[in-house]
Amino acid sequence: MKIIVLGGDGYLGWPTALHLSACGHDIAVADNFARRRADLELGTGSLVPIEELPTRLTAWRERTGEAIIPYVGDVVDYDFTRRIIADFRPDAVVHFAEQCSAPYSMIDRKHAVCTQTNNLVGTLNVLYAIAQVNPDIHLVKLGSMGEYGWPNIDVEEGWLEVEHKGRRDRVLFPKQGFDFYHLSKIYDSHNIEFARRCWNLRTTDLNQGIVYGQQTAQTALDDRLATRFGYCAVFGTVVNRFAMQAAIGHPITVYGDGGQNRPLINLRDTVRCIQLACENPAAPGEYRVFNQMTESMPVIHIADTVARCWPGDAVIERLDNPRVETENRYYNVVHAGLEKLGLEAHLLSDELICSLFDITKRYAHRVRPELLRPAFNWHEPVGRDR
Amino acid sequence: MKIIVLGGDGYLGWPTALHLSACGHDIAVADNFARRRADLELGTGSLVPIEELPTRLTAWRERTGEAIIPYVGDVVDYDFTRRIIADFRPDAVVHFAEQCSAPYSMIDRKHAVCTQTNNLVGTLNVLYAIAQVNPDIHLVKLGSMGEYGWPNIDVEEGWLEVEHKGRRDRVLFPKQGFDFYHLSKIYDSHNIEFARRCWNLRTTDLNQGIVYGQQTAQTALDDRLATRFGYCAVFGTVVNRFAMQAAIGHPITVYGDGGQNRPLINLRDTVRCIQLACENPAAPGEYRVFNQMTESMPVIHIADTVARCWPGDAVIERLDNPRVETENRYYNVVHAGLEKLGLEAHLLSDELICSLFDITKRYAHRVRPELLRPAFNWHEPVGRDR
Repeated sequence: MKIIVLGGDGYLGWPTALHLSACGHDIAVADNFARRRADLELGTGSLVPIEELPTRLTAWRERTGEAIIPYVGDVVDYDFTRRIIADFRPDAVVHFAEQCSAPYSMIDRKHAVCTQTNNLVGTLNVLYAIAQVNPDIHLVKLGSMGEYGWPNIDVEEGWLEVEHKGRRDRVLFPKQGFDFYHLSKIYDSHNIEFARRCWNLRTTDLNQGIVYGQQTAQTALDDRLATRFGYCAVFGTVVNRFAMQAAIGHPITVYGDGGQNRPLINLRDTVRCIQLACENPAAPGEYRVFNQMTESMPVIHIADTVARCWPGDAVIERLDNPRVETENRYYNVVHAGLEKLGLEAHLLSDELICSLFDITKRYAHRVRPELLRPAFNWHEPVGRDR
Repeated sequence: MKIIVLGGDGYLGWPTALHLSACGHDIAVADNFARRRADLELGTGSLVPIEELPTRLTAWRERTGEAIIPYVGDVVDYDFTRRIIADFRPDAVVHFAEQCSAPYSMIDRKHAVCTQTNNLVGTLNVLYAIAQVNPDIHLVKLGSMGEYGWPNIDVEEGWLEVEHKGRRDRVLFPKQGFDFYHLSKIYDSHNIEFARRCWNLRTTDLNQGIVYGQQTAQTALDDRLATRFGYCAVFGTVVNRFAMQAAIGHPITVYGDGGQNRPLINLRDTVRCIQLACENPAAPGEYRVFNQMTESMPVIHIADTVARCWPGDAVIERLDNPRVETENRYYNVVHAGLEKLGLEAHLLSDELICSLFDITKRYAHRVRPELLRPAFNWHEPVGRDR
């Protein structure tokens, strides 16, 4: 298949592009390097050094003989979005090209507005470009498990059968956002669900859990193929961040009592999920939702597991929770769709955590410890405005 | 109370400002005249001549002695939004300042993007301005009944008690948009609901039905106080449009078989609802939703009623439905909240329809008949892009 990965230079987009290429698909990537620019803005970076996109592509060609076509530009620019889809003529568009951090969206008003307009307009552009160029192209959009919030009922895959006052309907699962970033993903989901009714599009919405891990079979082939390892309080994801903290002798920073449940997925499973979604396209006019996660656990349990795996002393430090969330809520997620397509889950293992220790030890000198604690409180609307 | 009406120069914002002023409140209006500019863009206008804002304000002062303070600017410009709230120090902000037309949002990609970014950023700015200036200010936001779509269960007021697999929760009512405009209102609702949790704001979301009528006790005092009467296929609302068509001898244009249900509210009830919401503020941290409509009926029933009222021959013409909707769906809406606060509904009456005939006869020469039929099909993603 021909597949274009939007946001193909990012933490997940890059290993996804490599995995799909290794599976024999013809791959293009598009990126405007917004994620690299956010690092410059916040003074943070990847724990693991990452190469520029051209070097990455050269390394991949050297290692495998496979060419990946790069498109440099912004999906918020419709001329670009339409041009790359008309030019590459993909069978599937995998859309990662969004501002991806909840804390980033909560820095202040400008970051909230930037996150929501960037993500909304990019996705609208992708929908229009597909509808105008070829409505048969399958959109595989990365959503988030965070769109659902933490309801007191089981989280189903996108839809909910309800009975109310003796009448029944199958409705979009009622969602509730806990930050402006996850809200933007809710809005994307609504726009996609409407666009498929409007223009008979094939659409898959992958509500992804928090990804952990940093290596896949492909990125491990060559240091130049490494994907990023976000470690700061804004861009680091929970498992990777805790492992990094333990390995540099920093306290493991748990927000509140750590009772908040987090849906998780291994990076290797993420790239496999995208492959399964692409190779088993949604039907014309279908809005298909998969919950792309394999397990969930409370943050304190993740912290305890990391601390147990660390061979030395690891301290868990409870910080005032900067987030707008209720700890210790019921959380149970249905995630059957991707398993039915063939996903075999790799659950969080001591080996994986130890591999993150090894990575951190190699690059510990790159950590800026002042970036490891949250710098602002989401309940404070001023943020950095002043 | 001190109340600022954002979008206070519009079809509903203007009579709301007058009504609140007549009730003894201190009123300011803010507007960037986006609605007047959209008329220029599309070559349409108000059936009834409307004065510029300064003339309107002068007429109101002459008739009543009451001053309404004007602020000219765009709520998408945060410096403006924050400044007017800091300057006027309102007890309540009534927020009408949005692109208000579903067909406008479906013209093409640019209009979809413009509608969603304009409405989203404006509302985000209002939320941040309230949170930063004074979180005790009550936000009264105009939502739309169209946010709910047409579920096969009763439409409750914003929230739904669900039971699922033996567990229960009260969740945000699951919504489904049928155009990019109503989707933008869904997104506003989510942002407001989150912001009140984040910053403990007082928020009321008024999911308004389709407003009909053109006169209130205040606008009728002086021709210079008239509010607009949109009559074209993009900006005209269904009852007003049908009455205008009958009165100029144009066929009444029903889309599809006319079985689609529409929630309705009289303009006089609309301004009263806003008053009731302002005078009975939501609690700190509350996200309160009222369904601001008084009855619903199928489009064909509205057409038949208008045709019956018209003293001559009125022809009903069925056009291919340009919209993305299913006709003849179940539709039942709970709308108890505003009644509990004191709303006494004025239902659609023959007298009201006849008053619209009279208005149309007076200004029939201003109608451009070429604007009365839909100019594009929502299922066609190209629109005016080419």
